[in-house]
Amino acid sequence: MSVRISDSTVRRLSLYLRMLRDLLGQGVELVSSRELAERTGATSAQVRKDLSLFGSFGKRGRGYDVADLAATLQHILGLSRTWRVGLVGVGKIGSALLGYRDLARRGFKVVAAFDVEPDKIGREIFGVRVAPLSDLARVVREEGVEIAIVATPPDAAADVAKRLAAAGVGAILNFAPTEIQRLGDVPVRTVDVVLELEGLSYLLSGGRRQEPE
Amino acid sequence: MSVRISDSTVRRLSLYLRMLRDLLGQGVELVSSRELAERTGATSAQVRKDLSLFGSFGKRGRGYDVADLAATLQHILGLSRTWRVGLVGVGKIGSALLGYRDLARRGFKVVAAFDVEPDKIGREIFGVRVAPLSDLARVVREEGVEIAIVATPPDAAADVAKRLAAAGVGAILNFAPTEIQRLGDVPVRTVDVVLELEGLSYLLSGGRRQEPE
Repeated sequence: MSVRISDSTVRRLSLYLRMLRDLLGQGVELVSSRELAERTGATSAQVRKDLSLFGSFGKRGRGYDVADLAATLQHILGLSRTWRVGLVGVGKIGSALLGYRDLARRGFKVVAAFDVEPDKIGREIFGVRVAPLSDLARVVREEGVEIAIVATPPDAAADVAKRLAAAGVGAILNFAPTEIQRLGDVPVRTVDVVLELEGLSYLLSGGRRQEPE
Repeated sequence: MSVRISDSTVRRLSLYLRMLRDLLGQGVELVSSRELAERTGATSAQVRKDLSLFGSFGKRGRGYDVADLAATLQHILGLSRTWRVGLVGVGKIGSALLGYRDLARRGFKVVAAFDVEPDKIGREIFGVRVAPLSDLARVVREEGVEIAIVATPPDAAADVAKRLAAAGVGAILNFAPTEIQRLGDVPVRTVDVVLELEGLSYLLSGGRRQEPE
């Protein structure tokens, strides 16, 4: 199926899946669009529209089958498998990410870490040995890294991202406070705390808030 | 001026401002829409459209006045002043944020921190003393906290956010891996590493990428 899905729709699908997994754990079999909406900040109509993209899961008047819908969303989001993740930059944020158990639980296993600091190289942090940045290409290939997280200082981020793409990494999540452009086929997402705070600053200063799509 | 600006436009304005500040530091006086576009992943036409919302900064054939445009964007984004920030949850991510010097440099001064762990309460971390969560409302008022960062475990996040809103905080940035709904007038933004990785997983699994607006 080749439906064009926006980033914000993909984000909602992730939130629906998170809720569905919780419900599965509680033994719940059916869920209404209203319940899915409440937890994810969408409207019931939005939920129904999002889910109708992928077929018909609703049982009229009864709700969605939790297990079916979870399996489908998991498949759409590419989460029926575990992704092999590499982390570049084991500073404060990088270390926090290495210690973040939800990554592995949710299908993202950190299999390699890199730094340039001699006192970090060779250390094992939360079960992952830190390799020197100079070994990036070799370790990425040997460990089969598919997604990389860049948590370097901003000056180094663009160069590191290029090297990751050249080494065959398929996608990059950037935590460095700088924009990294998409590298050929390799999508890049940036998590930037200051940008998020500036968005709130805008709203607090009288900026009008956009309604959800 | 009451223009409705989308979240993604606000994000681009932040990126333009970041670039303009760098250029100011380098003594550059004029910048083209093409240069602003290159650094921020937008098109030149998008840059011109974004900036035309706020008046006319372009000098035909010469580019934008860097100082004028920076001052205007700073004003629009509410960054002509320093915001007082409170942090709830001094775990791995919370500590990393306390140590993140760019926050203060970019106008977000952390003036209060809270935790429930007895061994953290009373400690000073990067110059900020950790208060007990039970003192939340009093300290928020005394320190004049305007924006709060929630970095608690997911189970605690919604309750903490409600207490922050009740104590008078104007906006919340949520790092807990759970959605927090907008609380009355108080906007909430969520930074969620797993959601970002799931977005990349979707793209790597054959998902079609939405073009920028």
